[in-house]
Amino acid sequence: MRTETRVLGGKMHDLAATLFPMARSLAGPAFRETLDVLERTAGPLERHRFATGERVFDWVIPREWSVREAWIRAPDGRLVVSLADSTLHVVSHSVPVHAHMTLDELQAHLHSLPGQPHAIPYRTSYYRDDWGFCLSDIVRASLAPGQYEVLIDAELRPGWVELGELVIEGESEAEVLLSTYCCHPSMANNELSGPVVCAHLAERLRERSARPRLTYRFLFMPETIGAIAYLSRFGERLRRSLAAGYVVTCVGDPGPFTYKRSRRGESLADRAAEHVLRHSGAAHRVIDFVPSGSDERQYCSPGFDLSVGSLMRSMYGTYPEYHTSLDDLTLVTPAALEESLGMYERLVNVLEANETLETTMPFCEPQLSSRGLYPALGGGLAEVQRVHDTNWLLNLCDGSADLLAVADRAERPLWELAPVAATLREHGLLHPAEAHGPTSGPSYTNRRPWTSTNGRLR
Amino acid sequence: MRTETRVLGGKMHDLAATLFPMARSLAGPAFRETLDVLERTAGPLERHRFATGERVFDWVIPREWSVREAWIRAPDGRLVVSLADSTLHVVSHSVPVHAHMTLDELQAHLHSLPGQPHAIPYRTSYYRDDWGFCLSDIVRASLAPGQYEVLIDAELRPGWVELGELVIEGESEAEVLLSTYCCHPSMANNELSGPVVCAHLAERLRERSARPRLTYRFLFMPETIGAIAYLSRFGERLRRSLAAGYVVTCVGDPGPFTYKRSRRGESLADRAAEHVLRHSGAAHRVIDFVPSGSDERQYCSPGFDLSVGSLMRSMYGTYPEYHTSLDDLTLVTPAALEESLGMYERLVNVLEANETLETTMPFCEPQLSSRGLYPALGGGLAEVQRVHDTNWLLNLCDGSADLLAVADRAERPLWELAPVAATLREHGLLHPAEAHGPTSGPSYTNRRPWTSTNGRLR
Amino acid sequence: MRTETRVLGGKMHDLAATLFPMARSLAGPAFRETLDVLERTAGPLERHRFATGERVFDWVIPREWSVREAWIRAPDGRLVVSLADSTLHVVSHSVPVHAHMTLDELQAHLHSLPGQPHAIPYRTSYYRDDWGFCLSDIVRASLAPGQYEVLIDAELRPGWVELGELVIEGESEAEVLLSTYCCHPSMANNELSGPVVCAHLAERLRERSARPRLTYRFLFMPETIGAIAYLSRFGERLRRSLAAGYVVTCVGDPGPFTYKRSRRGESLADRAAEHVLRHSGAAHRVIDFVPSGSDERQYCSPGFDLSVGSLMRSMYGTYPEYHTSLDDLTLVTPAALEESLGMYERLVNVLEANETLETTMPFCEPQLSSRGLYPALGGGLAEVQRVHDTNWLLNLCDGSADLLAVADRAERPLWELAPVAATLREHGLLHPAEAHGPTSGPSYTNRRPWTSTNGRLR
Repeated sequence: MRTETRVLGGKMHDLAATLFPMARSLAGPAFRETLDVLERTAGPLERHRFATGERVFDWVIPREWSVREAWIRAPDGRLVVSLADSTLHVVSHSVPVHAHMTLDELQAHLHSLPGQPHAIPYRTSYYRDDWGFCLSDIVRASLAPGQYEVLIDAELRPGWVELGELVIEGESEAEVLLSTYCCHPSMANNELSGPVVCAHLAERLRERSARPRLTYRFLFMPETIGAIAYLSRFGERLRRSLAAGYVVTCVGDPGPFTYKRSRRGESLADRAAEHVLRHSGAAHRVIDFVPSGSDERQYCSPGFDLSVGSLMRSMYGTYPEYHTSLDDLTLVTPAALEESLGMYERLVNVLEANETLETTMPFCEPQLSSRGLYPALGGGLAEVQRVHDTNWLLNLCDGSADLLAVADRAERPLWELAPVAATLREHGLLHPAEAHGPTSGPSYTNRRPWTSTNGRLR
Repeated sequence: MRTETRVLGGKMHDLAATLFPMARSLAGPAFRETLDVLERTAGPLERHRFATGERVFDWVIPREWSVREAWIRAPDGRLVVSLADSTLHVVSHSVPVHAHMTLDELQAHLHSLPGQPHAIPYRTSYYRDDWGFCLSDIVRASLAPGQYEVLIDAELRPGWVELGELVIEGESEAEVLLSTYCCHPSMANNELSGPVVCAHLAERLRERSARPRLTYRFLFMPETIGAIAYLSRFGERLRRSLAAGYVVTCVGDPGPFTYKRSRRGESLADRAAEHVLRHSGAAHRVIDFVPSGSDERQYCSPGFDLSVGSLMRSMYGTYPEYHTSLDDLTLVTPAALEESLGMYERLVNVLEANETLETTMPFCEPQLSSRGLYPALGGGLAEVQRVHDTNWLLNLCDGSADLLAVADRAERPLWELAPVAATLREHGLLHPAEAHGPTSGPSYTNRRPWTSTNGRLR
Repeated sequence: MRTETRVLGGKMHDLAATLFPMARSLAGPAFRETLDVLERTAGPLERHRFATGERVFDWVIPREWSVREAWIRAPDGRLVVSLADSTLHVVSHSVPVHAHMTLDELQAHLHSLPGQPHAIPYRTSYYRDDWGFCLSDIVRASLAPGQYEVLIDAELRPGWVELGELVIEGESEAEVLLSTYCCHPSMANNELSGPVVCAHLAERLRERSARPRLTYRFLFMPETIGAIAYLSRFGERLRRSLAAGYVVTCVGDPGPFTYKRSRRGESLADRAAEHVLRHSGAAHRVIDFVPSGSDERQYCSPGFDLSVGSLMRSMYGTYPEYHTSLDDLTLVTPAALEESLGMYERLVNVLEANETLETTMPFCEPQLSSRGLYPALGGGLAEVQRVHDTNWLLNLCDGSADLLAVADRAERPLWELAPVAATLREHGLLHPAEAHGPTSGPSYTNRRPWTSTNGRLR
């Protein structure tokens, strides 16, 4: 088992390593190539295309960007900065440039981090025609006065923002969204860990023998513009069918888990993730929704207000390597990647198990012993626990509560309660509560103004 | 007063001692005899009978059981175990047996507690034809190999599960349930303390000169099957009329009080019991409902979901003597029995006083001084407190709150607030709020799914 | 700025000093004169009159009282107590008396404080014909046996209870109430500080160049009877239009601030005051409503249940000088008066800013960069904060939340969020939510029984 695990973690890390050097941006050949690589693991990705200039809500689809070569030549002829060394060296979506200028003129186009002198920062200029170079502060400080030659052999041309979608159909149309982004160039935790975990999670779900109860939708997109474009075309459908969703990001480092709640704060996404973390034994923290971060900003915009949170490890913006060249393949470990995958699988399992059942005998307890459900004289600890679980289920499953709510009130992991529930169904003591379909159940569409719980409007 | 107290506690302990030796089971002559003894104190008990074989919800009424003699004769001729020494020695509802067998064969029918070598455990086999003996582990270890003779001269025959009911009618049909069980043989805290406290509580309520406001219903039953049988016949009526109820058990030991909440968690039963405990000064703890325990399991089954909790001292399952021969008449003290009785009386008094009143002058404060309700210049501490209480009552009694809610918000004991409320009624400043009858008041029938407070279903 | 402040605090203290010596009662020439002085600062006060004998709810308007002279002459001819030394020496509303009596007979009419031997207590007898003198316990103890002469040259005659009202009209009929009382004679914190702060607050609001959004209503009244009389005539109108109100009292001492909540506990008055205190950095505490205190008792009587709290410094009844001659002009400081005025102004500003806005782009985030609302590459800390504030506003302003609720969830002071909101309105990204007028908005009239939040009625 441990060996199998190492193998899996190793494969995940290898996938990250394959994707690492590509000069991705939010649109262009490197992004497309990234999807090609990911689908070898995840399975075939349906590509959705949004043409340059197309309006998606308040935004306009930008041009594709590709870069062949980019460097700064010092007065002494040396290339002091070169795309060949790191894709981060050039500001993403820089316009092409070939020019000679003094160091002073060049400085306006340079970005470095005085507080982290060895790190190359990550910068983009998607929606403003500009160009620039990112470099370590050490190198920047070493630049001598004089004439510099700069070259960015890039191309900005009409094309498409593209995103890959994979759906694993379940028995129900109620669906779980796993959303990740792969527009960042050579950084490992943010963001290759998210696509890598998602690709492997998709692979593992596809390999399951039984059809899942819920439908699983994976999205591999460029951040922000991808989610906005997707929602502009499919948001209404998502709103009707979404049970729970997660933005999968920053899941490759060995730090403790972080769960960021959805805007609603008590959505099914939140309840499931917090349940899994609470009973997993893993170190973790839970934080409330804030409207900065990643694509949960779009899913949780007030018009959608979806049941979408984000299960991460070290959150973006909180670790020093974030958005720099230090976020490399050493920050991300096979064990951490695999543990994250395992946590997401557990989350999937909890959502799969989370039916809403109803006792068939609401008046007084059913007699367990006549059904062989009660231990005879004596009975070990496991049997006692099973009787307790049985009692909780028969008492609380009144049709108003899903199993997650029952498990939370009983303070029991759902994965231990669910097999007992299955036994009780076999004995006809529980049956599915009616009318909890994807569009009618309180878990999915019970939208109240956030102020009714979080704000106060009296 | 203290002497009177001792006398009362002594009487209670005497009643327990009278009942202690009887070989009770859930049905049979010893149970019937127990009711006969209890009604000498409680008052005449109406007997409800449920015939063997009758279906009560999911259960079937078992046969009556009686036992005349039961022993194990060792190879050397000695009776090593005998019913004559303890009613616990024979597994309750054992089928008759008279046989010779080796010690090895006998072992399968023996029950002892290695962790408590001096204790005889309490075991039953109500719903499975079996026989067995319970004995201390010390005695069991001393048994020499050889041929043993065993005799259980018992009888299982069709008859009735029987239960005793006593109703003290009040002005209102809204009722308070005091439910206890007396099917256990020779154990004192669990369970003779419950019937003893209930019998004396009934006696004291009957002796009151004034008719109570609420109706009081006492049930003396066999545990589980009694409550299920009762609810199968009278459950719907109980659901319509119940204001609050308590399972009275484990109230004889000197440990701190334990209040176990009803399934709903904020029912009138809970609010009243927690109020009394909080203001009593007695050591106590409050625990949430769990669907294991005693007859609250039936009252709080999801179809009934009644306002029923349980006010105990050391709770079943939490003290080492529980369900063994060590739960004897030394564990239960006159002082503890009497203190428990006093706590239940206080609870009764709180429920009696808990009307829903409404100010007759909702706009601005009424003038107290013109009614002699305001102390003149000066005025001692008691008068200041009375003015405070008056202000709380006149401010909060708006028809939406019962006096218990007012007392809780004012952080005052209801028994100190109630006389002030009475004075204000005399002055016409408060009057009963309309439409808070037993079936319409929010206290009684306001049934929400438990998830709306305890679970989370968004 | 600091100098200007000193000047303002000094003016406020001077106003208190001018009013201090007047022998005010709840009705009579000294009260009228007090209003005359206050309107020199506050602006013209409309006078409402309630004639002696008029019924106001449960109360009857008392007679006017004036006192010219009052003294006790000792057997040796000395005046041991005299109104000329302190207006507190005579029990307010004493009937006239001129008599000779022994010290023993006199004692029944004397009031002193053994625990505070140097303090003259404050006593009234508004609704009972009586007379009396208040004196320090030191003086009382020094009185020698013998014949005393007492004189109270007072007059009780039909007239009016009078109160002064000042309204600053805003764009909306929704209004803010500032209620204070000035019936107390020579005491400084309770109560001259309240009228002084209100008079200056009114002056400052009148001096503002722009018309306020809300309407501001100032009431200068005798305590209790004034509020009751006002509500009897104008209560229904107040109930329709009140957004938030405060009883302004005990705001002159340098102690930490105290906010006493309205009866509802989460009214707009409470939310605004607690927000201001929390973000002010000033030491403060918040206490729940209790139905004793000042005129909030009338505003929060159950029939009105208005959104009225009280922002104080050291609360009545909690500081040793309260209701004695020690509550003098040294207890009240210019700096404290001015700081209190500043806190009330901040409260006004928060209420002014507290609109309910709604995003015009609820689906996904609007693009900030295309509007110049997003900092280009780089951007300092202030710009980062502005983007955060922008995100909070665009995410939470969904029409269900006022800005105060948004600010509270974002944990940001409203005064820093409001300018960002204004910018977003200029860019058409936020606009006022409809139907939040004075009478329909949830902030104003969403009246639930208090038990739904504070009590428990299941």
